[in-house]
Amino acid sequence: MAEPDIACTDHAHTPRKYQIADLASCQLAADIFRALGDPSRLRMLSMLVHDELCVSEIADALGDNLSAVSQRLKLLKSERIVAARRDGKHIYYKLSDHHVKDLVTNALAHVSEPHDHH
Amino acid sequence: MAEPDIACTDHAHTPRKYQIADLASCQLAADIFRALGDPSRLRMLSMLVHDELCVSEIADALGDNLSAVSQRLKLLKSERIVAARRDGKHIYYKLSDHHVKDLVTNALAHVSEPHDHH
Repeated sequence: MAEPDIACTDHAHTPRKYQIADLASCQLAADIFRALGDPSRLRMLSMLVHDELCVSEIADALGDNLSAVSQRLKLLKSERIVAARRDGKHIYYKLSDHHVKDLVTNALAHVSEPHDHH
Repeated sequence: MAEPDIACTDHAHTPRKYQIADLASCQLAADIFRALGDPSRLRMLSMLVHDELCVSEIADALGDNLSAVSQRLKLLKSERIVAARRDGKHIYYKLSDHHVKDLVTNALAHVSEPHDHH
């Protein structure tokens, strides 16, 4: 459809109680979304949906540079999107909670669904 | 914990089959996340989790400028995050599908949960 012009005037609707998230929560959530808004980071995260993985496994599987992968994981850790644990020489990463898992899974599901393009 | 140094060498792990999202899907999903990565846009979307709303209702409830709200909604519509329908003078917006609803809800839930800060 063509983008309609705005014809409805201010105060045309009877005011009622709306549920609106507080601004502080929206700012934190926006930070999360921005950290997720990168194809390379998202591709790593798609691997972590299924498994806890060592940084070198991720780099190997993606054919990617170890230090680049490590930098991306550090950024995601600073945003609490992933959590890390050390086991000997290995540093294992996993998604920090089920919300993050759902975010990654839902976004990938959303883009794979057919949509009308107007 | 202090950020550990990388000690695990490349190819230290037995290769196995990883599930990795394709790059094209990751690029589309990253576009969605970037569009969601703004506090003002997210605050509007938090209203649409509960209701289909007219653009002027949203502007009124947020105490925000009608044309600013309209511009944000157009951007979100171009990313297929919201869908619009016209009814007389009114333009009603809703979240485009349940994935988007889950994305907004999950991100706001994620930031409201207690986390350890290392």
